[in-house]
Amino acid sequence: MTDVAPPPFAPLRRRDGRLSPQAVAALTGDLAARFGNRLVTSEAVRAQHGHTLTWTANQPPDAVVFAERTEDVVDAVKLCAKHDAPIIAFGVGTSLEGHLNAPHGGVSIDVSRMNRVLEVHAEDLDCVVEPGVTRKALNDYLRDTGLFFPIDPGADASIGGMTATRASGTNAVRYGTMKDNVLSLKVVTADGAIVQTASRAKKSSAGYDLTRLFVGSEGTLGVIAEITLRLYGAPEAMSAGHCPFKTVRVACDAVIATIQSGVPVARIELLDALQVKACNAYSKLSLPETPMLFVEFHGTPASVAEQSRLFGEIAAEFDGGPFVWATKPEERSKLWQARHDVYWATLLLRPGAKLFATDVCVPISRLADCVEETQRDIEESGLVAPIVGHVGDGNFHTSPLIDVDDPEDVARGEAFSHRLVRRALAMGGTCTGEHGVGQKKAPYLEEEHSAATLDLMRRVKAAFDPRNLMNPGKIFTE
Amino acid sequence: MTDVAPPPFAPLRRRDGRLSPQAVAALTGDLAARFGNRLVTSEAVRAQHGHTLTWTANQPPDAVVFAERTEDVVDAVKLCAKHDAPIIAFGVGTSLEGHLNAPHGGVSIDVSRMNRVLEVHAEDLDCVVEPGVTRKALNDYLRDTGLFFPIDPGADASIGGMTATRASGTNAVRYGTMKDNVLSLKVVTADGAIVQTASRAKKSSAGYDLTRLFVGSEGTLGVIAEITLRLYGAPEAMSAGHCPFKTVRVACDAVIATIQSGVPVARIELLDALQVKACNAYSKLSLPETPMLFVEFHGTPASVAEQSRLFGEIAAEFDGGPFVWATKPEERSKLWQARHDVYWATLLLRPGAKLFATDVCVPISRLADCVEETQRDIEESGLVAPIVGHVGDGNFHTSPLIDVDDPEDVARGEAFSHRLVRRALAMGGTCTGEHGVGQKKAPYLEEEHSAATLDLMRRVKAAFDPRNLMNPGKIFTE
Repeated sequence: MTDVAPPPFAPLRRRDGRLSPQAVAALTGDLAARFGNRLVTSEAVRAQHGHTLTWTANQPPDAVVFAERTEDVVDAVKLCAKHDAPIIAFGVGTSLEGHLNAPHGGVSIDVSRMNRVLEVHAEDLDCVVEPGVTRKALNDYLRDTGLFFPIDPGADASIGGMTATRASGTNAVRYGTMKDNVLSLKVVTADGAIVQTASRAKKSSAGYDLTRLFVGSEGTLGVIAEITLRLYGAPEAMSAGHCPFKTVRVACDAVIATIQSGVPVARIELLDALQVKACNAYSKLSLPETPMLFVEFHGTPASVAEQSRLFGEIAAEFDGGPFVWATKPEERSKLWQARHDVYWATLLLRPGAKLFATDVCVPISRLADCVEETQRDIEESGLVAPIVGHVGDGNFHTSPLIDVDDPEDVARGEAFSHRLVRRALAMGGTCTGEHGVGQKKAPYLEEEHSAATLDLMRRVKAAFDPRNLMNPGKIFTE
Repeated sequence: MTDVAPPPFAPLRRRDGRLSPQAVAALTGDLAARFGNRLVTSEAVRAQHGHTLTWTANQPPDAVVFAERTEDVVDAVKLCAKHDAPIIAFGVGTSLEGHLNAPHGGVSIDVSRMNRVLEVHAEDLDCVVEPGVTRKALNDYLRDTGLFFPIDPGADASIGGMTATRASGTNAVRYGTMKDNVLSLKVVTADGAIVQTASRAKKSSAGYDLTRLFVGSEGTLGVIAEITLRLYGAPEAMSAGHCPFKTVRVACDAVIATIQSGVPVARIELLDALQVKACNAYSKLSLPETPMLFVEFHGTPASVAEQSRLFGEIAAEFDGGPFVWATKPEERSKLWQARHDVYWATLLLRPGAKLFATDVCVPISRLADCVEETQRDIEESGLVAPIVGHVGDGNFHTSPLIDVDDPEDVARGEAFSHRLVRRALAMGGTCTGEHGVGQKKAPYLEEEHSAATLDLMRRVKAAFDPRNLMNPGKIFTE
């Protein structure tokens, strides 16, 4: 028997501290020589590149490099590897789970200037973009082509960040998540190699699915430098509307019946009564303050009309309605703008407080149970926490408003979040439907997955990044 | 800094030979003690568990174990590991790429008796099945639920095998491939651990996507013991029909226009004139012997009628038609039975010959180029090779009929297959759209992917199966 060379494995190291000031000076010296004024070490810019949304504390990197091309990423990664410095990819900073923090310092590679749409292949319904392109910028770019990219997490996130967190949002019930819409990736790995994960063919059985291994890997396996995305023909017609229900449970039942009946609903979002109230106040709507579905249909004018009619009939069977639908673009936009603005609407419920983002997802058959138990928990805890959910996927968010300067309030929020995750796991669900693991959900990964499953994930990490330089302190507990 | 224990990596070994007779005797002794008459070593059964379809030579395992439960798989894997014996999972034997062969001997773990549908969750549109359940058996089981599982590779393959090869087939243009329809897997890894890759939640961002890492891994990372599948509500209405075109190119252009226009076509299959002729002869049809699309639409009666009308209009724009559609189940079945029987219809074109299966997939914008160049190549090579394709995905098959006892004919077939793969790769495609890599496509993996990409795949393999016991000699060249 002849041995082939083993890959360069080394143990996954535990990082207890940041680089020494001397090490940082050596690192930034090398980076400055390569990147000039695209290396920034000012405190403000470093803080801005740590985590800023929600309540997770800010942990700034030692330096920020503004990459403009894949070659910049390669060189930044190689210099970090030389100096044993952590590498954190940064898109536009809309992460909700502390992904951008630098608990061990290191270099934030800001790819927001890598914002070119490199190729659009209209006949193939795909495009190639740099990671700093945001979803809105991409759809603006595509406007004249008759194509669109549907994934919509609410925030105008970067495509790179959406890929890294396996993002989804309101359209996932029809168009899937990032895992379904990334065809191929160009990734810079921990040793500075450039890897193209797949061809542009729409399907392939040619080896392991590295594309989907990187989708959702949160920067822990490599830095995404290019993304090939699926596109869709813009629907000829869209209609959207809102439909009140007496309880969250019957709203969920109506959603299940709708999906089982094969109505290809494009969006179907649940808001509880408190969330509707918040939206009415913030977005100047006058919706009845009761559990509510926001729905949208895509297709030809005839099929959209048929879908709307079928949904209305199903809703009526569950004592819901009236289903009020809007076909005019401005009415539709107003509804979805309100949905996207729940973050701001929610903040108004307790001025000065911060959101504790939560993101559980359960089998849809358990959604009503999970939402109802969570509402009871909110009430018993004395929290202010409206609920909004991507109900077609069994995924919902409730964001308690917490005074982060009050340790008791923080403890109350943390305890609530903990119970919520445990509740979802007990129902066969997941601790995160779309936000990612980041820092705060890492402890739950070991509860959600068995030790054997997590062991395989750690093996992947060690095989791809043996020195643990890629976004350390995320996904896995240390 | 404290080190955490490194995973048990060892070099990926090259296997040059089979186990010694003494080693086989020790192995089968242990297996017999555990499995009794569910261990079979007769020559006939061993040969039947090597590769039997197409022209790939049969390489039988040393023994066959008939597993009935996950625990059987665990014990078989552990005993194989003890004796350093290769492990080959076997479903129902419909692989086309030599996946079932045992080039280094070892044990075929036959899971065809693991054929229970374990759970159906109608509200969640999912089910849990054992790997030996075939797709037809599953749909028979589901008949009364109003649900169905759409993936249809033609053969009545096992769900385990379809998962292992990332199979797809005629419905993929609408419903995706196995990667899109496997929610979670229970896998027995090389060290005998049982790993559940994900929860039943419809989406999750909780760590690396191990599910899709195992989908398409061809038994090289573990043995699949349970599969959680997405199901769909059976469409209220279906219509299918056939539409002739003057050339392959305009047929492809009509497909591109159909998909861009957003018509949610459920199946759209291209047959070249020779394939139509073969189907006419075998399936007693009387279709015009010209390039042809077989299409199918799913939806409500009204939406199916609208889709059919829109498709007919688009076809006419490309000088195609008349589009003859059948809504009666028996007419529809006859058409798709003819499509599924192309294997047998093709064999009739040269009795006594065997098929050289090919499976390239290119971006759809290059499909007409690829098919036309391939037709010229067939003509110039003097081969008999009809073409049939999942044209909505850019994937097509042409199967030259080869006299496998004539070395010159075999060489001609191999040279043709080689040129075809090179042509697809040059057009940005893949050497395999749905059959998998197996043995014969392994050399092309290094052409399709860069060395850096293949290095990552090898790292995954070494991390999960450091002793290279899981289906050695597949995917990677040795």
